[in-house]
Amino acid sequence: NTHLLNLFFLFMHLQLIGSGAAAQVITSRGTHGNYLTIQLGSALGAVFGIFVARGVSGAHLNPVYSLSLCVLGRHPWRKLPLYSLSHLVGAFLGAATVYLQYYDAIQAFSGGELLVAGPNATAGIFCSYPADHLSFWGGLVDQVVATALFLLCCVALEDQQNGPLPDGLHPVLVGALILTMGVSMGSNCGFPLNPARDLGPRLFTFVAGWGEEVFKAGGGWWWVPIVAPFVGGLLGTLTYEVLIEAHHQTTPQSPQQELEEVVVDSGNNR
Amino acid sequence: NTHLLNLFFLFMHLQLIGSGAAAQVITSRGTHGNYLTIQLGSALGAVFGIFVARGVSGAHLNPVYSLSLCVLGRHPWRKLPLYSLSHLVGAFLGAATVYLQYYDAIQAFSGGELLVAGPNATAGIFCSYPADHLSFWGGLVDQVVATALFLLCCVALEDQQNGPLPDGLHPVLVGALILTMGVSMGSNCGFPLNPARDLGPRLFTFVAGWGEEVFKAGGGWWWVPIVAPFVGGLLGTLTYEVLIEAHHQTTPQSPQQELEEVVVDSGNNR
Amino acid sequence: NTHLLNLFFLFMHLQLIGSGAAAQVITSRGTHGNYLTIQLGSALGAVFGIFVARGVSGAHLNPVYSLSLCVLGRHPWRKLPLYSLSHLVGAFLGAATVYLQYYDAIQAFSGGELLVAGPNATAGIFCSYPADHLSFWGGLVDQVVATALFLLCCVALEDQQNGPLPDGLHPVLVGALILTMGVSMGSNCGFPLNPARDLGPRLFTFVAGWGEEVFKAGGGWWWVPIVAPFVGGLLGTLTYEVLIEAHHQTTPQSPQQELEEVVVDSGNNR
Amino acid sequence: NTHLLNLFFLFMHLQLIGSGAAAQVITSRGTHGNYLTIQLGSALGAVFGIFVARGVSGAHLNPVYSLSLCVLGRHPWRKLPLYSLSHLVGAFLGAATVYLQYYDAIQAFSGGELLVAGPNATAGIFCSYPADHLSFWGGLVDQVVATALFLLCCVALEDQQNGPLPDGLHPVLVGALILTMGVSMGSNCGFPLNPARDLGPRLFTFVAGWGEEVFKAGGGWWWVPIVAPFVGGLLGTLTYEVLIEAHHQTTPQSPQQELEEVVVDSGNNR
Repeated sequence: NTHLLNLFFLFMHLQLIGSGAAAQVITSRGTHGNYLTIQLGSALGAVFGIFVARGVSGAHLNPVYSLSLCVLGRHPWRKLPLYSLSHLVGAFLGAATVYLQYYDAIQAFSGGELLVAGPNATAGIFCSYPADHLSFWGGLVDQVVATALFLLCCVALEDQQNGPLPDGLHPVLVGALILTMGVSMGSNCGFPLNPARDLGPRLFTFVAGWGEEVFKAGGGWWWVPIVAPFVGGLLGTLTYEVLIEAHHQTTPQSPQQELEEVVVDSGNNR
Repeated sequence: NTHLLNLFFLFMHLQLIGSGAAAQVITSRGTHGNYLTIQLGSALGAVFGIFVARGVSGAHLNPVYSLSLCVLGRHPWRKLPLYSLSHLVGAFLGAATVYLQYYDAIQAFSGGELLVAGPNATAGIFCSYPADHLSFWGGLVDQVVATALFLLCCVALEDQQNGPLPDGLHPVLVGALILTMGVSMGSNCGFPLNPARDLGPRLFTFVAGWGEEVFKAGGGWWWVPIVAPFVGGLLGTLTYEVLIEAHHQTTPQSPQQELEEVVVDSGNNR
Repeated sequence: NTHLLNLFFLFMHLQLIGSGAAAQVITSRGTHGNYLTIQLGSALGAVFGIFVARGVSGAHLNPVYSLSLCVLGRHPWRKLPLYSLSHLVGAFLGAATVYLQYYDAIQAFSGGELLVAGPNATAGIFCSYPADHLSFWGGLVDQVVATALFLLCCVALEDQQNGPLPDGLHPVLVGALILTMGVSMGSNCGFPLNPARDLGPRLFTFVAGWGEEVFKAGGGWWWVPIVAPFVGGLLGTLTYEVLIEAHHQTTPQSPQQELEEVVVDSGNNR
Repeated sequence: NTHLLNLFFLFMHLQLIGSGAAAQVITSRGTHGNYLTIQLGSALGAVFGIFVARGVSGAHLNPVYSLSLCVLGRHPWRKLPLYSLSHLVGAFLGAATVYLQYYDAIQAFSGGELLVAGPNATAGIFCSYPADHLSFWGGLVDQVVATALFLLCCVALEDQQNGPLPDGLHPVLVGALILTMGVSMGSNCGFPLNPARDLGPRLFTFVAGWGEEVFKAGGGWWWVPIVAPFVGGLLGTLTYEVLIEAHHQTTPQSPQQELEEVVVDSGNNR
């Protein structure tokens, strides 16, 4: 049932804010929020998603994070597929709930047509599309850089050796980190960062009436926010290992360190 | 006198921000704030309402929360009517104070006419009205979903087993949760969430000169923000019980758990 | 030298943000901020003013707070005049520094004329003026209500019996409280709340070239933000005493309570 | 390798937000953020830069801070040149990464021309330029005042005698301080505050195609944000020593105080 929680987490994260905040701003044509409130939504969605799920060991925020832990040998590879599937299903169901909640608003806004591009487009409520100026390589670079920094900071926040955090501050800081991404790396392609959170809702919009255009748009953009975050995530995690972790290891301070390597799996409850 | 505190809490919560922030933005026609400052107002009103009342055991934020505790057997049913009445009276008095404080501004803004709809409408300062696009069922769905998530998160934040919170962070997080609702679920009908906070001020506007239109508007909308939050609140509370609490109980960790079930009532001091 | 600190506190509080943030938004005609950033400025100015001064016992934020403590018998009356004078001088010097820092900007904005009213007015950077719609009685009510709530919350945040706060959160919450005032009670007359912070800068603008219009404007408005906050402050403090403190005393829990009444004076270090 | 961390810190600080947030708002012509999101970016960049580096003793945020510690005898002078060089290189590389990430956006925005002034200017993404209204002396005053307040608050936040902070709150407060600067002292010349963060990116833009105009603009403005922060920083640090530290020393409370003077150097890990 950790899988259920992972599923539920993304369901809620997505539903609550990531997409709800975007739906609100887009369908109200900016009268009920602006770019900042959308980012606050994404951030606060993560905060409360983590607060709800944090008590249950093993819940992860992001498949990229799960993969990084597997690569570092801190999480069993065999669990990865089911984790990722839970994320995907949760994100799909979350998108469906947002559509349900904003059904009237989306219909009124778009005149009943579910479009991927143009002034009445609503597909951007659910998943990422590149800005007109963005080239293929530009999108890859953007996502690799953004996810690298995102994961590097995530790992740093969890590194007890790097300085303790008061219990309860961690979820808030993860939210602040997502806000950071939104205000500084959001204009190229909307900082997907999370493959499940991008693909799940894209599948939903494909099924729900936006059609195959959701995969064709941006010159077949859909796979970039799936592949690039994994590359960036590994890069960020390894950078932290080399830059900071390695530094810790050259100055060992307590036997607690060895201990930690034994129990790492149970401790990664996000 | 816990009733008095409940009354006072909503009085303050409403007066301070929920309605004050809306009055400020509406009557200044957006020169002294925007959609985000209204949401910040609602959130910060709750924060300081809780900080003022938190020392006194038994103060509840919301009749929906009280009802959920009754259903779960953690709060005596006999206290529910008086609690709800206190909430209602507090919200009514809070609305009256906001009207007093913004009397000149409302008169100047509306040209002396107290209207429920149109560009010079001021009834929306005090309680919720549906957006033009919202259908009857859409409003019900919106409020059930929003209150379910709201209560689920409220219960999670209070669940000590789910991870402790530093003292003093809890009220801040409840405020952040209200902000979350405002930025992601506010454009359909203004996220009432709280039946007392919606009905009390509506009664005030009925009495104070807006007239029976406050009940007729939106096709008789007034009862939706009373009924739907109770349905959503129960749904959210039960979801948490099933999803997380149940998970805790399958992995008991300490005798503290049994203890908690005995003293639950005294511990719910919000 | 506590007086010096009080002086310095208001100097900094004013200079840093209260007026600097307003100067920035007004002279940039909204390109470098908006209503929200002005309120954030006021709030953050208080936060860092308190963080700088908090280590030194006896520093107070506001003459209204000092007076309330005197009335409650928790602060010696004889200290009140010098405290208030320090506040006044600090606020005067703070205003002078803001004028120095924004001298070029104010000259460019106003074409060299220092005006109190009209589209190129700059006096509002430094102290409060009523909105056009505000009547005399409306202004009194607004300030009494606002300061009552402000002081009530200030006293609640300091009441250890009402629930402890993590060290370091208190200054942040006072800032949040000022933000609250700004977003929900700022459009009538700019929430002065603090007589010294209003009169000191007004005296500076009188001397610096805005002339006697700073006292004549708004039908002789200048004394309202001096008198009304004292009335509201006492009202708020007494409300808390009656509503919450009294409740604590009917349910004594520990001998710590009697102790506290002896050492109250040294403990009020703000 | 503390140098490496200093380098990396500024790289990240700059790349993540300081410049990324500005690039986003400028190249999207305000559709993906506003003045406030740029300031949030600067603030959050510092927050996460500190969280990543805080575990490693000796990492400093700002050459001005390093110099102040040297002057106060708390940091060896011989380390200053390499520290400053690391900062400079980090900021240069950070600017390069932002340019890489926003290459497509900058090209589309500016039509391929890299300009320092005018409506399509992009140089302001990377370093500070004075507003049109700002005189030479006005710029000096602005930067001396701003950096003095900045350093004064930084030193106060680190002064354990002035009141403890919960672990984990310190980086957040430094971020809030940077936000404070941005909302109240940002419109004259963009609050550089940090010589390395201004000169490094300026050198990058010089090399990358903006040309020598980056040094000629504003009447040879470039050296003001290098010299003035050092003057202001020393002023702020000394003010704190005189005003608060001196006050502590006249009221010694514990033997911990003497101890602290011995180990000061190892404790200044920022």
